[in-house]
Amino acid sequence: MEKEQYVLGIDYGTDSVRAVLVDAMTGSEITSAVAYYPRWAEGRYCDPSKSMFRQHPLDYVEGLETAVKQALAGLPGAGEKVAGIGIDTTGSTPCATDAAGRPLALTEAFKDNPNAMFVLWKDHTGVAEAEEINHYARTWGGTDYTKYEGGIYSAEWFWSKILHVLRADPQIRNAAHSWAEHCDWLPALLTGTEAGVKRSRCAAGHKAMWHEEWGGLPPERFLEGLDPVLKSLRDRLYTVTYTSDQKAGGLTTSWAARLGLRPGTAVAVGAFDAHMGAVGGQITPSALVKIMGTSTCDVMVAPYEVIGKKLIKGICGQVDGSVIPGMIGLEAGQSAYGDVYAWFKRMLSWPLEELTETSMIDRATGEKLRQQIEDGILRKLSEEAARIPCQETHLVALDWLNGRRTPDADQTLKGAILGLTLGATAPEVYRALVEATAFGARAIADRFRAEGVAIDQVIALGGIAKKNEFVMQVASDVMNMPIKVVSSDQACALGAAMFGAVAAGVYGDIQEAQTRMGGGFSQTFMPGLERAREYQKLYGDYLRFGTEIAGHLRDL
Amino acid sequence: MEKEQYVLGIDYGTDSVRAVLVDAMTGSEITSAVAYYPRWAEGRYCDPSKSMFRQHPLDYVEGLETAVKQALAGLPGAGEKVAGIGIDTTGSTPCATDAAGRPLALTEAFKDNPNAMFVLWKDHTGVAEAEEINHYARTWGGTDYTKYEGGIYSAEWFWSKILHVLRADPQIRNAAHSWAEHCDWLPALLTGTEAGVKRSRCAAGHKAMWHEEWGGLPPERFLEGLDPVLKSLRDRLYTVTYTSDQKAGGLTTSWAARLGLRPGTAVAVGAFDAHMGAVGGQITPSALVKIMGTSTCDVMVAPYEVIGKKLIKGICGQVDGSVIPGMIGLEAGQSAYGDVYAWFKRMLSWPLEELTETSMIDRATGEKLRQQIEDGILRKLSEEAARIPCQETHLVALDWLNGRRTPDADQTLKGAILGLTLGATAPEVYRALVEATAFGARAIADRFRAEGVAIDQVIALGGIAKKNEFVMQVASDVMNMPIKVVSSDQACALGAAMFGAVAAGVYGDIQEAQTRMGGGFSQTFMPGLERAREYQKLYGDYLRFGTEIAGHLRDL
Repeated sequence: MEKEQYVLGIDYGTDSVRAVLVDAMTGSEITSAVAYYPRWAEGRYCDPSKSMFRQHPLDYVEGLETAVKQALAGLPGAGEKVAGIGIDTTGSTPCATDAAGRPLALTEAFKDNPNAMFVLWKDHTGVAEAEEINHYARTWGGTDYTKYEGGIYSAEWFWSKILHVLRADPQIRNAAHSWAEHCDWLPALLTGTEAGVKRSRCAAGHKAMWHEEWGGLPPERFLEGLDPVLKSLRDRLYTVTYTSDQKAGGLTTSWAARLGLRPGTAVAVGAFDAHMGAVGGQITPSALVKIMGTSTCDVMVAPYEVIGKKLIKGICGQVDGSVIPGMIGLEAGQSAYGDVYAWFKRMLSWPLEELTETSMIDRATGEKLRQQIEDGILRKLSEEAARIPCQETHLVALDWLNGRRTPDADQTLKGAILGLTLGATAPEVYRALVEATAFGARAIADRFRAEGVAIDQVIALGGIAKKNEFVMQVASDVMNMPIKVVSSDQACALGAAMFGAVAAGVYGDIQEAQTRMGGGFSQTFMPGLERAREYQKLYGDYLRFGTEIAGHLRDL
Repeated sequence: MEKEQYVLGIDYGTDSVRAVLVDAMTGSEITSAVAYYPRWAEGRYCDPSKSMFRQHPLDYVEGLETAVKQALAGLPGAGEKVAGIGIDTTGSTPCATDAAGRPLALTEAFKDNPNAMFVLWKDHTGVAEAEEINHYARTWGGTDYTKYEGGIYSAEWFWSKILHVLRADPQIRNAAHSWAEHCDWLPALLTGTEAGVKRSRCAAGHKAMWHEEWGGLPPERFLEGLDPVLKSLRDRLYTVTYTSDQKAGGLTTSWAARLGLRPGTAVAVGAFDAHMGAVGGQITPSALVKIMGTSTCDVMVAPYEVIGKKLIKGICGQVDGSVIPGMIGLEAGQSAYGDVYAWFKRMLSWPLEELTETSMIDRATGEKLRQQIEDGILRKLSEEAARIPCQETHLVALDWLNGRRTPDADQTLKGAILGLTLGATAPEVYRALVEATAFGARAIADRFRAEGVAIDQVIALGGIAKKNEFVMQVASDVMNMPIKVVSSDQACALGAAMFGAVAAGVYGDIQEAQTRMGGGFSQTFMPGLERAREYQKLYGDYLRFGTEIAGHLRDL
């Protein structure tokens, strides 16, 4: 029998799904395609003023079909040679399902009800419920079930969202049999196992308070005590979870036909994008992998012998097998990274509105000019900021413009710029903001170390890592470590493909898949000795300022 | 004999001198003219990178002649009817003089030596000397001679500048017989009394540590102990000082001819612009007069019975007769006011540079467009910021971008913006900066009150007061007091004219001149009850933040 050559990595992002056809032997990315979610693009089922963000399951289904077919079209015949499929998604992004495991929005009665759709990771409608969960977990008299998730339960997570929707919508309350994460449902859909969906360890452990210490999800009496609306839901959810090297099932005949693949093709259990991305980015013990975009997700793995049941203080979660099976996956992150620079760019762009209102040039030229200048701002700021020696600005910023995710989650914190003089220029302020995000990155690394998790290398992937050399150099100087940038622009999809390969039996485990399929690094940023020394001092200012004014920033 | 009808107010600013012809009976401004200093405009004798700012005496002399003649040309025959002249200048702006009382730069040997010229108020070359003076004054074992000047001697003041120039330039050390303030020298020049110049009480008391408690300037042993280079200078300076209701002398025949005035016309003793401006702005006991421009100068007067020898903590100085003869003149101020907004405008203008570099429009259009947008920024920011209710921004700024003059002078402080979120807009940040300057204003008023000086009204004059309604409304809300804006755009010159009238004997004292010549107020800003309440809270945040991070801001 001829050996199958390809695997498919499917990466569901916030706006689109990407399908990448990967050579299972070498990890080379052969073809790829992206499909945007049509309903989402129109803003349907969302209300940004209330931070309500819902996605219709049909967006996922149609997007998948489009992206996979288009990717396969790039290499005729390849569909026949696809051995396995791996799928990553955003999360926590749960949806109410019926007894058959189908999202309620796929039934006629609920097709336009946002509460019957996937509640996207960044939906914040469950803020009050998150507060309740935190309060209850600490005061109910038993185990604090948030303890392996950093001790602070987020509005962006599974139970906050479920509780909010069940309270808000009696129809859903009656119709919802169970709930599934996006990364649970997609593999189940493709393999015809929706009714008995294999649950993702990654999603369960990081977002749903699942832990083997208490035999799975928090016990019935905890959930019912939180709100009777949750009564008996636990039994209709799950106890067993699976790591993503496991097969969710084989592709159904009908899905095989729709996608142009063979029936029975192995589909791996799903996981979250950052976790599969870390695998695609060559994560190993003692490597800190930073997925750097608008915000960051910082992922590490550590052998069970190193961590055991020790609680790592102030990070987002620690889950056995959430990243690499057999190791503890650790997640941290910054609530804003690229978003901090985007904020500054937006502020500097404010006077440019005038370009479309002046009578000196026509409106179309004004609009083009505005766009051109706006698009160049961050590049130009980076160029000029790079020329300012780090000893020279004397500005210190705090990077918490979107709160602080880690270390020590606190969404009520805010940002600051300190040390302003009349001579302070836009590139100097930008430089301070870039330094602040790097200080935030360092604070996470320092926390890992302080908790006994060694870091001997930093690996970066994502938009910022590939596009902004100045930002990366400052991060390297501040962390005083080399930072290796992952070659692949699609590391999440590549990681998903690795899981697909293991689930299909092409490789025995993820480490072997990483060795064979890893794409290496395109660039390494090295810290400068003198800059690192200078930043050691400035980092001290950052920490001191942060500690001293945190209380007041919270109150603003 | 027909009663003379007019007086001339001469106002020397940083860039130009203004002459205003005023009806001595009504205070109406009949004609006026401005002359810019030609050498200064070219940037000669200055090195901004070293904060070195010198002005050639010929700039003052030529400017005076141009401005006065042009003003008089507006009403033929008026020169014959001018009874008196009052002169205000910037300060402390001293110059080395020869034995005849002439500025050394007017002698052939020194005509191009910046050290032989007037050392402008904002020249900071004496920073090290100021530190020495402060240290010495506190440790030499005797009286602290800075005590009536707020207890902290500034680099911008008389002795810091003299000490710096004498140390830096041996030629000046040999040639300098004495030193004169700009406001001392000009009246002396016009009245032929340079050799026996009548010294301004205002300049002497606020900037030269002159006080009757120790019989004039600090004693010889203090000055010589500070540096032997000052040995015996005290005897060649002065002991007696004069308030500006006194006549410096009568106009010489030659100056009368040059200016088109009558010989013998009374010229009043000079004083600083803010002090005469406060008089022109109708200062009375319990009125706080704010001269609001790039920075502010805050002036009050209080009867001797109220203050006595009590030291008002943390203000800039308290001098018997410096504003209104017979009362204690009190000076405070903020190091940056309009300059804070100008800084923000400059930062927002940064991307506009691109307009002159893009190929989409020609360079000339780009330059005009850039200028147009830049010129509109503060107006547009004010419009939009005015629409944001003060409860809504949640940003707090510290206004010390140029250090803090009062309360409690500290030039090492810096500015800050706190509470930033990803949604913070340019108008919101601007609003916070405007509020910060208002908080700074309130802190000064609160200090006066805390020290027993009652304030029952606020009077504003200067560019900001006349031009930015939003800024003035916020100041009124934050101070929770009505703010009356002085009608005259030339309140300093009007005040100088009042002193000219009293020196000429038109009126018996300054209060009478104020009553007869005062121009009233053009507008009153009233505080809003709800805004004032809200600001009461935000002001608390400003004070708390300031206190807690001041130490760190100093170290940046």
